[in-house]
Amino acid sequence: MNKPLLTDNRLSHSTLTDLYQLTMAQNYWKLSKKNLKTVFHLTFRDIPFGNGYIVFCGLDSVLEAVKNYAFYESDLIYLSGVKTQSNKLLFEKEFLEFLKNYKLNCNIYSVLEGTIVFAEEPVLRVEGAILDCMLLESQLLNKINFQSLIATKASRIFCASSGKPILEFGLRRAQGSDGALSASRSAYIGGVVATSNVSAGKIYDIPVVGTHSHSWVMSFESEKEAFKQYILSSPTNCVLLVDTYSTIQGTKNAISAVKEYLAEPEKNFLAIRIDSGDLAYLSKKARLLLDQAGFQNTKIIASNNLDEHIIASLNNQKAAIDTWAIGTKLITANKTSALNGVYKLSAIFNDEKKKWKPCLKISEDIKKINNPGILQVIRFFDKDGLAYADSIYNQLEFTPKKSMVMINPRNPRQKKTISLDSPREELLHQVVKGGKVVYHSPSIHSIREKSLNQLKNFDASIKRQTHPHIYPIGLESGLYQVKEDLILKNKNLSQ
Amino acid sequence: MNKPLLTDNRLSHSTLTDLYQLTMAQNYWKLSKKNLKTVFHLTFRDIPFGNGYIVFCGLDSVLEAVKNYAFYESDLIYLSGVKTQSNKLLFEKEFLEFLKNYKLNCNIYSVLEGTIVFAEEPVLRVEGAILDCMLLESQLLNKINFQSLIATKASRIFCASSGKPILEFGLRRAQGSDGALSASRSAYIGGVVATSNVSAGKIYDIPVVGTHSHSWVMSFESEKEAFKQYILSSPTNCVLLVDTYSTIQGTKNAISAVKEYLAEPEKNFLAIRIDSGDLAYLSKKARLLLDQAGFQNTKIIASNNLDEHIIASLNNQKAAIDTWAIGTKLITANKTSALNGVYKLSAIFNDEKKKWKPCLKISEDIKKINNPGILQVIRFFDKDGLAYADSIYNQLEFTPKKSMVMINPRNPRQKKTISLDSPREELLHQVVKGGKVVYHSPSIHSIREKSLNQLKNFDASIKRQTHPHIYPIGLESGLYQVKEDLILKNKNLSQ
Repeated sequence: MNKPLLTDNRLSHSTLTDLYQLTMAQNYWKLSKKNLKTVFHLTFRDIPFGNGYIVFCGLDSVLEAVKNYAFYESDLIYLSGVKTQSNKLLFEKEFLEFLKNYKLNCNIYSVLEGTIVFAEEPVLRVEGAILDCMLLESQLLNKINFQSLIATKASRIFCASSGKPILEFGLRRAQGSDGALSASRSAYIGGVVATSNVSAGKIYDIPVVGTHSHSWVMSFESEKEAFKQYILSSPTNCVLLVDTYSTIQGTKNAISAVKEYLAEPEKNFLAIRIDSGDLAYLSKKARLLLDQAGFQNTKIIASNNLDEHIIASLNNQKAAIDTWAIGTKLITANKTSALNGVYKLSAIFNDEKKKWKPCLKISEDIKKINNPGILQVIRFFDKDGLAYADSIYNQLEFTPKKSMVMINPRNPRQKKTISLDSPREELLHQVVKGGKVVYHSPSIHSIREKSLNQLKNFDASIKRQTHPHIYPIGLESGLYQVKEDLILKNKNLSQ
Repeated sequence: MNKPLLTDNRLSHSTLTDLYQLTMAQNYWKLSKKNLKTVFHLTFRDIPFGNGYIVFCGLDSVLEAVKNYAFYESDLIYLSGVKTQSNKLLFEKEFLEFLKNYKLNCNIYSVLEGTIVFAEEPVLRVEGAILDCMLLESQLLNKINFQSLIATKASRIFCASSGKPILEFGLRRAQGSDGALSASRSAYIGGVVATSNVSAGKIYDIPVVGTHSHSWVMSFESEKEAFKQYILSSPTNCVLLVDTYSTIQGTKNAISAVKEYLAEPEKNFLAIRIDSGDLAYLSKKARLLLDQAGFQNTKIIASNNLDEHIIASLNNQKAAIDTWAIGTKLITANKTSALNGVYKLSAIFNDEKKKWKPCLKISEDIKKINNPGILQVIRFFDKDGLAYADSIYNQLEFTPKKSMVMINPRNPRQKKTISLDSPREELLHQVVKGGKVVYHSPSIHSIREKSLNQLKNFDASIKRQTHPHIYPIGLESGLYQVKEDLILKNKNLSQ
């Protein structure tokens, strides 16, 4: 409505934020509180899909945003025209001048991409001036919520696929260009082997696949002619889509076309693809036809509204499917279309007392009460290398030395003393120091390998598709006590 | 895996595509069939959410893509390294050279943004060389499917909100940056009044709103102190979030703070926001407190996992809520996370016979069989200006003159002759001619106005939230006959 003419309409990392972050930023600046030292944590409230775990993803694009964080000239021109609900200019010139030279100066500690994590444990921590912490909030959540959601969905489908490769074909149903791109990356990390999305291949180095569509077949006089022409023009990429008119007849036509026109057909007839109909029935029929014709090595790729449940059911029915191609239900995570990560203030530095003050937000729902302090997570492994518990501790209260008393926050009578000599790993690693990125993401292929290897570190019960075992997340006893005290104290804070 | 080092990692419009489009493009090029003249239509298979209609959205970004369609140097370098499944280079040098200078030369006809449309009718048509038509497919679907999904969800929430304003607060749960941005735009077109997303405000000129979060309150010694400092630093933007510790006590604290620190509080205390708890109960209690303190004009904004169903229920309970702020369930469309628009070849020009040949894809599911030909849609209005039917016709078979016989494709015995003298409108408009954009999108505010005005052109029964009336979509009798003939003929095509 009041937007000035901008010569530069680029999306900046600084404006990918909710307005209230900037409103509050101006207020802290006015009140000379902008350098108030604080700590915020990002935590997932729930695990999606009834799954037993989450695959953490999104750090790489967070670091990209930190590296390139700046207010463009056009951002400041735009902000100079934004009005409040009472129709006054919202931002003061001096504040916009301040933003012009603004540089992030925070520290960020994060779980690394591809790591298996759980609800209610911190997965990312930002320490620094309250302005830095706040200004990053919306996009930290935007990136990590979505990318972890898709990596988790892909991992879940991977677990259901009994080792058969999964292709990601979601671009056309994805939620926008980035909803496709960053999802292709996350899906690859979660376990997919390739994508149909060319830009995802270009930008992220994910293997790309794809041969032809129904319209190829329809653009020729007959299906046989279409297969013939496809083979003649693409002899090294022979995957034929057989269901344009009838899958069975299509398979027969494919077989006769490769026999006639493809050199060394037993070697070069790579696969057929079936994209409709009863996949269990049709894949078995097609397998039989292929085998009878001597094409035992020719694979069958299936697509059409697949997800982990349909894959499990098709596997149970012994469908003759070698490769799963998944679109909508992977790229948008289907019915659970968002992960509910939250980002909460958990400690403030008191300049007078020279001391950190842990804090929390009260809620009637106990799950919504955050853990106070400056947090770290230790993962414990048994002698077989299987992870058996994660314990969250407050670095202000506890230093890992000999042992740790871990309390189940759902049932505080459940306590356990764990020796710190046993194999363990701290999950949060410093990735940004004083506003500079100090962590270099490994290649996407290593991240994917990590995510698949991590699965081996957890008991099968955690990976079950329905009603998985709930992996134990405990609070170190000092943290538990501080939290209890704060809950009691905060009940009076609003009085 | 095989990705060469690229100096330019930009996302180009040409690579936002599935690989098979490029594979087929190369094949048509090799076979000298690249200029085969074709027609493709984009059609939604279903209406989402059990809604009665779809709000068409996404054309503006399609036109943006057409304007800027080109293969970057880096795209071609990337493509030169892509391998087939048998580990051979997929693309020939000469083909990549051809792509380097590639320019779109197609015609596009489209429904205009903000128009109400229905399943099974064409909403966009591309005419041109098969290469042009194909290369645009994936991103046409990506943009139009998602943006129409969100505009429709917003429109549905708009219809449930009984005229009270809706704010879009979804950035943190959106599917990536573009999943937020293009959704903010679509939600605004569908009926939302403002967004929290600053970049959406900057790029699309959508009004932006937002004041403060729970962390603001927690960063002060007490809630009262937080409200005082907020009021002192933001006196013209006084919306206080009252549920950090307790909504009732928070409302009391807000009242006492504005009385003490806000100039002309009756005028300037704009609103409180409640973000948790039982919104029906708490909003009524808060309303009472505000009224008793003389703040009859202060509004109550509610947020927390809202959607059209919860809004309807809260309205039924006479919750004292003046403004709805909606995040996740709007920005990702919640459980129906994708719209199933498809893009199908429907006519091919036969160069020998100098004649268009209509075509279709067979499917066991009758809904999946596309309409053949070069299609247009006429919408008919009754004397009160209410739309009562859409009729699809094939321009190769029919020219609108005096009257039109419309057949219900679900029940062919239902026929109706409609006079073409009655008020009517053609839905598809030319927007691209010879690869050049010839349509200039109106301002987003006009598109929004159009979308809200269109609602008035339909009977209330179409806008019902559950089990809406099914709006009649008919086939002109000539089209119906061609389709029937082709279905019979195509059954033999794969033989």
